[in-house]
Amino acid sequence: MSRIPVGILGATGAVGQRFISLLHHHPWFEITDLLASERSAGRRYGDAVNWVLDSPLPPAIADLPVKLTQPGETDARVLFSALPSGQARELEPAFAAAGHALFSNASPHRMDADVPLVITEVNPDHLDMVRVQQRQRGWDGFIVCNANCTTTHLVAALHPLELAFGVEKVFVATLQAASGAGYPGVPALDLIDNVVPHDYGEEHKVETEPRKIMGRFDADHFVDADFTISAHCHRVPVIDGHFEAVSVSFRSKPSREEMIEAFVSYRQLPQQLALPSAPDPAIVVVEGMFRPQPRLDRMAGAGMATVVGRIRPCNILDWRFSLLGHNTIRGAAGGSILNAELMVHQGIIA
Amino acid sequence: MSRIPVGILGATGAVGQRFISLLHHHPWFEITDLLASERSAGRRYGDAVNWVLDSPLPPAIADLPVKLTQPGETDARVLFSALPSGQARELEPAFAAAGHALFSNASPHRMDADVPLVITEVNPDHLDMVRVQQRQRGWDGFIVCNANCTTTHLVAALHPLELAFGVEKVFVATLQAASGAGYPGVPALDLIDNVVPHDYGEEHKVETEPRKIMGRFDADHFVDADFTISAHCHRVPVIDGHFEAVSVSFRSKPSREEMIEAFVSYRQLPQQLALPSAPDPAIVVVEGMFRPQPRLDRMAGAGMATVVGRIRPCNILDWRFSLLGHNTIRGAAGGSILNAELMVHQGIIA
Amino acid sequence: MSRIPVGILGATGAVGQRFISLLHHHPWFEITDLLASERSAGRRYGDAVNWVLDSPLPPAIADLPVKLTQPGETDARVLFSALPSGQARELEPAFAAAGHALFSNASPHRMDADVPLVITEVNPDHLDMVRVQQRQRGWDGFIVCNANCTTTHLVAALHPLELAFGVEKVFVATLQAASGAGYPGVPALDLIDNVVPHDYGEEHKVETEPRKIMGRFDADHFVDADFTISAHCHRVPVIDGHFEAVSVSFRSKPSREEMIEAFVSYRQLPQQLALPSAPDPAIVVVEGMFRPQPRLDRMAGAGMATVVGRIRPCNILDWRFSLLGHNTIRGAAGGSILNAELMVHQGIIA
Amino acid sequence: MSRIPVGILGATGAVGQRFISLLHHHPWFEITDLLASERSAGRRYGDAVNWVLDSPLPPAIADLPVKLTQPGETDARVLFSALPSGQARELEPAFAAAGHALFSNASPHRMDADVPLVITEVNPDHLDMVRVQQRQRGWDGFIVCNANCTTTHLVAALHPLELAFGVEKVFVATLQAASGAGYPGVPALDLIDNVVPHDYGEEHKVETEPRKIMGRFDADHFVDADFTISAHCHRVPVIDGHFEAVSVSFRSKPSREEMIEAFVSYRQLPQQLALPSAPDPAIVVVEGMFRPQPRLDRMAGAGMATVVGRIRPCNILDWRFSLLGHNTIRGAAGGSILNAELMVHQGIIA
Repeated sequence: MSRIPVGILGATGAVGQRFISLLHHHPWFEITDLLASERSAGRRYGDAVNWVLDSPLPPAIADLPVKLTQPGETDARVLFSALPSGQARELEPAFAAAGHALFSNASPHRMDADVPLVITEVNPDHLDMVRVQQRQRGWDGFIVCNANCTTTHLVAALHPLELAFGVEKVFVATLQAASGAGYPGVPALDLIDNVVPHDYGEEHKVETEPRKIMGRFDADHFVDADFTISAHCHRVPVIDGHFEAVSVSFRSKPSREEMIEAFVSYRQLPQQLALPSAPDPAIVVVEGMFRPQPRLDRMAGAGMATVVGRIRPCNILDWRFSLLGHNTIRGAAGGSILNAELMVHQGIIA
Repeated sequence: MSRIPVGILGATGAVGQRFISLLHHHPWFEITDLLASERSAGRRYGDAVNWVLDSPLPPAIADLPVKLTQPGETDARVLFSALPSGQARELEPAFAAAGHALFSNASPHRMDADVPLVITEVNPDHLDMVRVQQRQRGWDGFIVCNANCTTTHLVAALHPLELAFGVEKVFVATLQAASGAGYPGVPALDLIDNVVPHDYGEEHKVETEPRKIMGRFDADHFVDADFTISAHCHRVPVIDGHFEAVSVSFRSKPSREEMIEAFVSYRQLPQQLALPSAPDPAIVVVEGMFRPQPRLDRMAGAGMATVVGRIRPCNILDWRFSLLGHNTIRGAAGGSILNAELMVHQGIIA
Repeated sequence: MSRIPVGILGATGAVGQRFISLLHHHPWFEITDLLASERSAGRRYGDAVNWVLDSPLPPAIADLPVKLTQPGETDARVLFSALPSGQARELEPAFAAAGHALFSNASPHRMDADVPLVITEVNPDHLDMVRVQQRQRGWDGFIVCNANCTTTHLVAALHPLELAFGVEKVFVATLQAASGAGYPGVPALDLIDNVVPHDYGEEHKVETEPRKIMGRFDADHFVDADFTISAHCHRVPVIDGHFEAVSVSFRSKPSREEMIEAFVSYRQLPQQLALPSAPDPAIVVVEGMFRPQPRLDRMAGAGMATVVGRIRPCNILDWRFSLLGHNTIRGAAGGSILNAELMVHQGIIA
Repeated sequence: MSRIPVGILGATGAVGQRFISLLHHHPWFEITDLLASERSAGRRYGDAVNWVLDSPLPPAIADLPVKLTQPGETDARVLFSALPSGQARELEPAFAAAGHALFSNASPHRMDADVPLVITEVNPDHLDMVRVQQRQRGWDGFIVCNANCTTTHLVAALHPLELAFGVEKVFVATLQAASGAGYPGVPALDLIDNVVPHDYGEEHKVETEPRKIMGRFDADHFVDADFTISAHCHRVPVIDGHFEAVSVSFRSKPSREEMIEAFVSYRQLPQQLALPSAPDPAIVVVEGMFRPQPRLDRMAGAGMATVVGRIRPCNILDWRFSLLGHNTIRGAAGGSILNAELMVHQGIIA
């Protein structure tokens, strides 16, 4: 089978680079177009980019020309968007209107009423909203969003618990990696011998996105899930890997063993279909009170899994645990790609 | 007035060094004895110590001989103990039995039924327990403990709220500095590009010590305060300064303004008496959603104050806020010293 | 004596903030004017600045209005410039032409033929060049530069050796702090679990500036000193404090004791005059093969001294040693201020 | 072909873990024995080890029993030693006497007159010394050492230059990773916001080992190469990857192009034989004045290559450049394994 041509919007940024590294050897997709801002457009990608990943820039990619981020510049049916929020707001709808299947890692359209916000294991049925979106907006293309990096791993860990026991209330305190802010992102002067509280906007995302994702798709609209989250978000001196400390209360009270069983038996559509980027298991349970840790656990499942540990009773809610996930792989580029893989499998993209 | 001679137990360790730096120019106390283990005893202090503070080792202190940590080696009435837990368990009672007023930063005796666990602003009346302790144990001396470093700043921030509104439930997630583990303490391989969850023992201290400190002293026993804490504790790549993210519910619901007023109007015995090490204000309220931060705020009040910020509503409990405090100054050596200052003022030590 | 009014150019940047913290309690100078770019001009300083120092922003300073960086906005005779290079090139001469005594921390004019590049202990006689500068350029004011932060401490350590033994060749490898790049400066993604080689421009400064500073002032021109430097420059994950590994060959070969004697007996004009910001000693010699270290030694002499250690023979040149100095205190703002203090003492500024 | 059984001495330490991760899927070797100290002996490896690598501990290895580090405990012909110096001094000869082919990463025997100190690309002919060693010592087995991690990459970069131009003098300043000190190794308090000069012993190794490695094997003894090194060594807050700043003078002066040609055309025995662990190319030349960097370049050639960049003239010697190499892969375990592979290929081990 010939591979499906794909383009990357915001290709020179940190998440754009992550898209490249994950798509370069992809069995179904082939990178044909790299789009970026005026500063880079017209240049060879290898000259325009300040490559910040620890895997090398593939030479074939380095030789691609950078195109300007505007509709008409690319024929690729599938686009992955690593655009910054400011640009994503206007440009992503323009590409969708021009017929592209756009998988966005940006935040502006995540909470739009007709835009599916999808974690492939959790709410693949929400993808059907793209038909509503196309009809309502008169688009040939569509926008599918993946969630904020912190939301993604929180929901990944909550979903098996929701299925088994019903989630009621969630406290979460995060220790987030620097790469979540892109490049240049956070100054070194802020993260050497220091931690920095996150802005309240991040906390708001973590408190609202999960309710949409874990909510219901009801014919032509989404119904938010009925549980409450309180988030304390912080940036720590870590390159990759968001750590989250979670307390949770349930409608039906599980034992510790039942919680572990819910995590380890969690196999959803991506695992059942063995999609190319699907981690299996999706959730890795680690033992010992000192795990998970970002540096040791972020590459679980090639960066696509969520690692859970430290399951212990909570004095206020029911149970406490800690989770860890790679923020720029599963929490960004990889999450988009897995969504696209499912739509290819479903024949929606061909 | 001639200064009161004091000795330091565990003088070569990180907290021992902090005691030295805080006591060297103290108006009431004079360091006369430095006690340490066999490895150091008999040597000149400057030769025995691996000084890890960024303030220089005072030359006069460097020339003092190190004595062995055992009763009989020192005549100093007042001793400050920076002993590791293992040694503190046996040695501290031996010194108290030998007549010393022992102010301990170690954990083994904090929860003993007749040992006061004191944060000078919060429960100075608990110091009266030393008379019960002396009577029951037949000691001339006594042991007074200060709290765990994380507990200390949590209670410092909760106490004005308890006085004004009644604390009911507390959720706290910590980002703790490396110096809390002493020297050598945490390996660099664990804290470069990484965070490490704390052991559950730390969480237990943070959940139990505050209830004793904020509890009642009832003639000859302590009655724990009636509120619940759930703690998630983590070590982060920071030298000094513990950051804590707190959610709290109250018996009487305050407004944001009333909370701020409770913090800024909080002036207790150490401030009223202007004790030499008392911070004034005891609580510093900072503005802006990016403060407090360890590197910028840990030296507030010369490291003796607690810094509070990010006061905002909580979706589950009533209010959220963040706090920051120096863990080896107020959270360790400085806390001990302030307790001793009050007992000098009260004439209990002379 | 009433204090001399001074203004700060580039007042909102990291070096500008350092000027404020050093000048706020200065016995001779009083901050009256804070100048910055259009983005900040017209605002209250406390609102315009993102304060990144660990000492608090003085409230009286926070209330000052920010003025636009252009001549005519300030009447202060003395100006300290923390302008970025791009702006310093044009603006500093404009202020000097307008009659201001301008002490610049910026690089563009350091190597100008009629601009003195001064480390107060090393070449105070170069300050006489301001008369030539004023005559040649028709200025009422003048520009005096201080050196690059790395140059400053290197020359500080070389000068006593030059005086005693004659320096011939210098090999220097640097481990420089992040604050040298200002704020936001270096991204955290570049300095967590990483070091970054410096650009070659930095190495060029370190190789050329010392020859001007340690050269001769000959009536109306400077004659470069006759020695050679080879510099390897690197940025490391340190907030403040440049570490430099040095090998040096001499015209007259000293013993190790003679080198130490040269360092410890080094007392120059600032020490003799006891200028307010002069460190005394100017050079601190530390013992032990693990010192100096940035975190432990950068505040020697309140950040104004240079710390030297690890003196040992070199297999290629004569001697090796390591040095450490605070890059934004002595290496930037403090160096400017000490130059100004000398000119006040000399009556050139009044 | 059935795989050759191998044992690992010091299997629970950081380098021991690296041996495991590199040998677990090795085509020629199979891990059959894990040996460690009394503290671990008798336990399941997975229970005894504190695994600190970011790749997971292979489950099959976790289930192996830990044996005590003494001859007689293992039948594996080939042993890889990750013993600490203190233990290596006595134990390695004992194992060699007992008939084992021992590949040591430890320092005590590196400079022994009859022990080959081998970097496989540089001096494979030195391996012939094992016959002399066996004859002189009456051993059935033998000891082959690989070099200090810093030495390894320095020599790897110097060797092509030596072959082409003749190396005369070498200045090297190092920025070394924390993992070089093993686990627990360097305390976090020493490497947060700090760098630490290395002990002089490290510098001595870097100054002497290269002369043995690049020297001649003359029938039954080694003749040191005739060039001089001056080393300044430092520890920086980096997990893996030693950075070295090098100045070098040559007997025959090359152009920059000739130097690059010497690096890129360097293909030695391991590359020609395509040994399983051989990097190809052995030396990676990177462009741009900001490379190499530890985090971005340490995994070049799967951690077995040496990365060279920043080639520019030196003001004192002839040329300057920077190099970077993985210290626990090529600089430790991987270097040992490559030596063993060559001896298998040569039929010395079967």
